[in-house]
Amino acid sequence: MMSEKIAFLGLGNLGTPIAERLIHSGYELTVWNRTISKTEELAKLGAKVAQTPAEAVTPGAFVISVLSNDAAVEETFTNELLEKLGKGGIHISMSTISPETSRKLSRNHQEYDVAYVAAPIFARPEAVKSGVGNICISGNADAKEKVKPVVQTLVKGVFDFGEDPGAANVIKLAGNFMIAASMEMMAEAFTMAEKNGIPRQSIYEMLTQTLFAAPIFQNYGKIVAQHTYEPAAFKLPLGLKDINLTLQTAASVHVSMPIADLLRNRFVSALAKGRENLDWGALAMGASDDAGL
Amino acid sequence: MMSEKIAFLGLGNLGTPIAERLIHSGYELTVWNRTISKTEELAKLGAKVAQTPAEAVTPGAFVISVLSNDAAVEETFTNELLEKLGKGGIHISMSTISPETSRKLSRNHQEYDVAYVAAPIFARPEAVKSGVGNICISGNADAKEKVKPVVQTLVKGVFDFGEDPGAANVIKLAGNFMIAASMEMMAEAFTMAEKNGIPRQSIYEMLTQTLFAAPIFQNYGKIVAQHTYEPAAFKLPLGLKDINLTLQTAASVHVSMPIADLLRNRFVSALAKGRENLDWGALAMGASDDAGL
Repeated sequence: MMSEKIAFLGLGNLGTPIAERLIHSGYELTVWNRTISKTEELAKLGAKVAQTPAEAVTPGAFVISVLSNDAAVEETFTNELLEKLGKGGIHISMSTISPETSRKLSRNHQEYDVAYVAAPIFARPEAVKSGVGNICISGNADAKEKVKPVVQTLVKGVFDFGEDPGAANVIKLAGNFMIAASMEMMAEAFTMAEKNGIPRQSIYEMLTQTLFAAPIFQNYGKIVAQHTYEPAAFKLPLGLKDINLTLQTAASVHVSMPIADLLRNRFVSALAKGRENLDWGALAMGASDDAGL
Repeated sequence: MMSEKIAFLGLGNLGTPIAERLIHSGYELTVWNRTISKTEELAKLGAKVAQTPAEAVTPGAFVISVLSNDAAVEETFTNELLEKLGKGGIHISMSTISPETSRKLSRNHQEYDVAYVAAPIFARPEAVKSGVGNICISGNADAKEKVKPVVQTLVKGVFDFGEDPGAANVIKLAGNFMIAASMEMMAEAFTMAEKNGIPRQSIYEMLTQTLFAAPIFQNYGKIVAQHTYEPAAFKLPLGLKDINLTLQTAASVHVSMPIADLLRNRFVSALAKGRENLDWGALAMGASDDAGL
């Protein structure tokens, strides 16, 4: 059991189970969230509650952020916060943000002798609870060594992608792109089967027990086969946000991604049809709609 | 060990190891192939060699076909052959052909009291040798029961998709479509990583050890990560043939498949660039070309 002070910023769907897991592992957390009511459950578990992000910080310690997008991370890590955090401080940045924002934050942190480690996580909330997720990390080598014990308490696998602070974000975006692409390909295949008189469940079972026997296909494939888009573990607008980041990251290095273009259009069309509160798996409804089902 | 007479028609890359496996399992094979030289190895193993498809057939017995396309199956199963095969005869049709052709063949076979069972196989030649492939079957229920011992000697899993003789072909096309789509999505993701300074091998290893830990991603992903498109286990023009069948099958039931459209264009462009002798994984070169790599 560890006893170390960590400021924890952002208690959304994913932030909350991550914070809980750290408390159960013995870390002393001071939590902050824009909507303060979300801190209550964690306070019961023993977390201190701060009124502002800067108040949560202990000089020279760790700060973990799990925020909703690039702008939220940039707004939260003010110069005031970085100055208080200061020398020896390390920001473990777990949000899914653009590699470019990670690189910019890293440069900005350096001015205050604060290290920045990108550490995006592959895990749905229930995967955090059972500790079966994965984290990609990148950034300063010394800082990465120091944060490894913390991130290792959260997941099964930790994968190091070198010193470029944007690298881990590239992998996270690539992975989310591939998850969405997997849902779209299953939607197209299952719809072709369905209109040939084959139950979606039959093709789902055969393919995910054999060639595609991987968690992504088994778990998301079940959603696509059965059209169960509620409750939403990861809402559709977040899927659009990630695909937009993927396309922007790809375009910035002159890479075209035609499947990602298609996925973007699927998400945009889903919003047009009022599906903003469904799971991002609801992009799969596009193939059914197009087939007149 | 069985002792049963089977006519075996078509000794290509996949037909040959299937025939070998049946001989090793004790079946008495009479083989035929358009290019007769390909029968030599099997003759050494004890197979009889026929000069024509009809000559290979024993009345009331099994015929297995592993032919290159729809036209080859239709041309091979002449009325003369079906008349000789006659009552009790069963055609186990393992080629990747369109569901529509399977349905048409099945009706035609019935006129001669011959049963037609679609039994397309998911397996590269080396997977046939090690018996780890899968077969989907569909067609007449009694005939399927009779052929199960034969197909079970070839693969790990046999999946029954009901009485529609086209159903197993739909699943086979859907599966091949999903394999090609997996290669394209990896090509796009790996190229985005590569142009962000991340080695293709690193992103390949992380994703296929975690979220995408399935044989398709591990085996084809290695080809895509390392650009090793030779030797070709399944040549690129065969990939185009299968995607064309997929699109044709989908369109016939009014299903649009935008990823399949994209894959078709990738294959067509690969042929334009002289890649007809490479493995179908070479469709992945399209993303690299488009990124100026």
